[in-house]
Amino acid sequence: MNIKKLLFKSTEINGIVLRGWITANRGNTKIRFIDINDGSTITSLQLVIKSTVSNFSDIEKWRIGSSIFVSGNLLKSKSQGQEFECDVLDVQLLSLSDDDFPIQKQEISFETLRDNFHTRHRTNILRSVMLIRSTLSKEIHNFFDKEDFLYMNSPIITSNDGEGAGEAFIVDSEADKNFFLKKATLSVTGQLHAESYAIGFKKVYTFGPTFRAEKSNTKKHAAEFWMVEPEVAFFELQNIIKLADDMLKTVIKNTISKHSAEFEFLDNKSENKLLKNLWQYLDNPLKIIDYKEAIKILEKATIVFENSEIKFGIDLSTEHERYLSENHFKGPVAVINYPKDFKAFYMHLNGDKKTVAAFDLLVPGIGELIGGSQREVRIEILNSRMRELGIDVEDLKWYLDLRRFGDSGSSGFGLGFERLIMYVTGIENIRDVIPFPRTVGNLKM
Amino acid sequence: MNIKKLLFKSTEINGIVLRGWITANRGNTKIRFIDINDGSTITSLQLVIKSTVSNFSDIEKWRIGSSIFVSGNLLKSKSQGQEFECDVLDVQLLSLSDDDFPIQKQEISFETLRDNFHTRHRTNILRSVMLIRSTLSKEIHNFFDKEDFLYMNSPIITSNDGEGAGEAFIVDSEADKNFFLKKATLSVTGQLHAESYAIGFKKVYTFGPTFRAEKSNTKKHAAEFWMVEPEVAFFELQNIIKLADDMLKTVIKNTISKHSAEFEFLDNKSENKLLKNLWQYLDNPLKIIDYKEAIKILEKATIVFENSEIKFGIDLSTEHERYLSENHFKGPVAVINYPKDFKAFYMHLNGDKKTVAAFDLLVPGIGELIGGSQREVRIEILNSRMRELGIDVEDLKWYLDLRRFGDSGSSGFGLGFERLIMYVTGIENIRDVIPFPRTVGNLKM
Repeated sequence: MNIKKLLFKSTEINGIVLRGWITANRGNTKIRFIDINDGSTITSLQLVIKSTVSNFSDIEKWRIGSSIFVSGNLLKSKSQGQEFECDVLDVQLLSLSDDDFPIQKQEISFETLRDNFHTRHRTNILRSVMLIRSTLSKEIHNFFDKEDFLYMNSPIITSNDGEGAGEAFIVDSEADKNFFLKKATLSVTGQLHAESYAIGFKKVYTFGPTFRAEKSNTKKHAAEFWMVEPEVAFFELQNIIKLADDMLKTVIKNTISKHSAEFEFLDNKSENKLLKNLWQYLDNPLKIIDYKEAIKILEKATIVFENSEIKFGIDLSTEHERYLSENHFKGPVAVINYPKDFKAFYMHLNGDKKTVAAFDLLVPGIGELIGGSQREVRIEILNSRMRELGIDVEDLKWYLDLRRFGDSGSSGFGLGFERLIMYVTGIENIRDVIPFPRTVGNLKM
Repeated sequence: MNIKKLLFKSTEINGIVLRGWITANRGNTKIRFIDINDGSTITSLQLVIKSTVSNFSDIEKWRIGSSIFVSGNLLKSKSQGQEFECDVLDVQLLSLSDDDFPIQKQEISFETLRDNFHTRHRTNILRSVMLIRSTLSKEIHNFFDKEDFLYMNSPIITSNDGEGAGEAFIVDSEADKNFFLKKATLSVTGQLHAESYAIGFKKVYTFGPTFRAEKSNTKKHAAEFWMVEPEVAFFELQNIIKLADDMLKTVIKNTISKHSAEFEFLDNKSENKLLKNLWQYLDNPLKIIDYKEAIKILEKATIVFENSEIKFGIDLSTEHERYLSENHFKGPVAVINYPKDFKAFYMHLNGDKKTVAAFDLLVPGIGELIGGSQREVRIEILNSRMRELGIDVEDLKWYLDLRRFGDSGSSGFGLGFERLIMYVTGIENIRDVIPFPRTVGNLKM
């Protein structure tokens, strides 16, 4: 039994037994109050320890972070601040924390916490984020399971860099150079491999780490992050947008319902904007607009953009994406039918020959959360797009082969998992939603 | 609706609609029989097409692998070989497969299939394996969710190689050499990072890819494979062995119950040994023996081992492990208390100062499926073990710090996920249970 489940029962229980860590220790010579946390929730349970327990005089020396064992009775609390407390029968120190334990009562800045990846999850803020991260993961798996998707693992080490973006990390064995007898890179997407499995399994998804050797040191870029990439045969653009919207709404709703204490804490931090904004999305149909319409909106914007040239053909930058979702639509919006010129070769070319059947789902605070498309099924168009972009056709022969073997089209998207966590928790820096983040010049622990 | 769910209802249904791929096409000028598979199960649905459908004369040209759309009524079958069949009202070709589609009716060797990672999942054997792989994954997540574990992602790119085995891949950016300003390797284990999260969250697990630059070209080694690594604070050796046993039994039982068609197929392939052996494990308590007892059993074995020197102190090789599980115990067995000399530095040193509180769970056909241990909580012993093994203490200072901050011990294990799939499916080569396997000298697609 853990603290979350004990408190969820909302009833007095005799004979509870817990192990956990001290988050507060105060009192006097007659009574001591220890807060114990076991990681099941951010809520700590208050232990009330009377001077009749045999080791009472030792207890004041037990520092924050120490692990303890306790047995007692869960009773309605007579004091303010909590509904229940534990009347202690026996409490034992298991391991005393040294006095340089970095997590103490006072609030610590995110920057300082980033020097302590190995202990920062023992603060309320990181504890909330990591509990929610875990539940978001599980809810994503649950969603796809209920929708009869096959979970597949695209390879991490690949011989092609997927989108030809040239931002892939190189991999080799130190002892046996040229281990794979060819250039090996870390995957930037599992999509192409997932497409091959969609032809045969119909509905598949990947959920695994992806890598970008990007030098940009922004709040939303990391060298290593997790991606969710569903791919569905027989789906067209509107079907895959609906899937993205359904998935997001289901996953976010279920996660909120499982973490009332954590969301209360995060909502307070955000001055009660977080949950209001999330429910604004959850309770309303997703807006879908054409790229051309997005350009018109941006042209009319009174705000001055850093990238100030707004016309058909430009790639939207984060400031544009955020303007559209935060300022204009005041919520998530899907932009569709982007100009082909800055989009990947595998996207379905629309009848106008200028745009592709792609979508980006933009959310406030983040910009692009999801990017997806209907895939180009016509092999001759794929071939010419690859030539245009200088992608080695021979290298991707296996991928082109799919079109010859019963492929009547598929669609898919990529969700940056950490961006989802940021959107759902309101945390602004990607470094604070990954247990041990990796960015350019930073490889701690 | 998919074929698996339609057939599961075991009742006649009017007005079904399906999209999928042709796995067989036979008949004459009056009637045609097409088998359609949609990837939900290995079972294909027989379509009965009478000459009254308008495009009847085209249908004989539809090759295996082509995608089609069909509508009709699901009726009790009058012929042998299937319980239900689909009486077709309308059938349309969506995409014709070229005639060099490698997957045809006749059985293809595993070796040949390995030239076709992108299409081999469209055979019954690989389709079974990948459906089971997906369900095993989901059942592992479900098991830990029910047991209140936090799912955490240990980093893939690390600056230490965990066990000091020296088999790590090196990572760097091609464009910006020394991207991380220090040597970066691909993770060989997520354990050390998981340990830090167990102190605070109590019960955590990782499930992600790990990497070994091993040159050994065996049936059970791959350069890239997935590992499940739970870590539980306050657990000792016997607790973590019980967790491993409970997890395996729950996950395997649930997977069998969800894949009757796939297990029937695999069981036939194994001459009905597969399910008998799995149930032998599922229905009996796990045997646990001391390493010393294992040595005695091996000494008495009449079989001649390649590694023929059997005495206290040797590391068990696969032939020894398989002898113990296959020949002697005829089922899984956990061996505990190994000599410290060939085990990792972080394992709890037993009172005899010679052995560590570690276990390996050995299974027939594979050898080691799981390896785990109680972790050493005494910082001075950790320090001296690291010095003995030449591991840089400064590099793992953060890990040693955990012991000073309320760590009263934890235990964990690592499950090689692909070995679990091999054990559960009876497939003998790890290359056939990974969608796109990576081994020394091999990086296809």
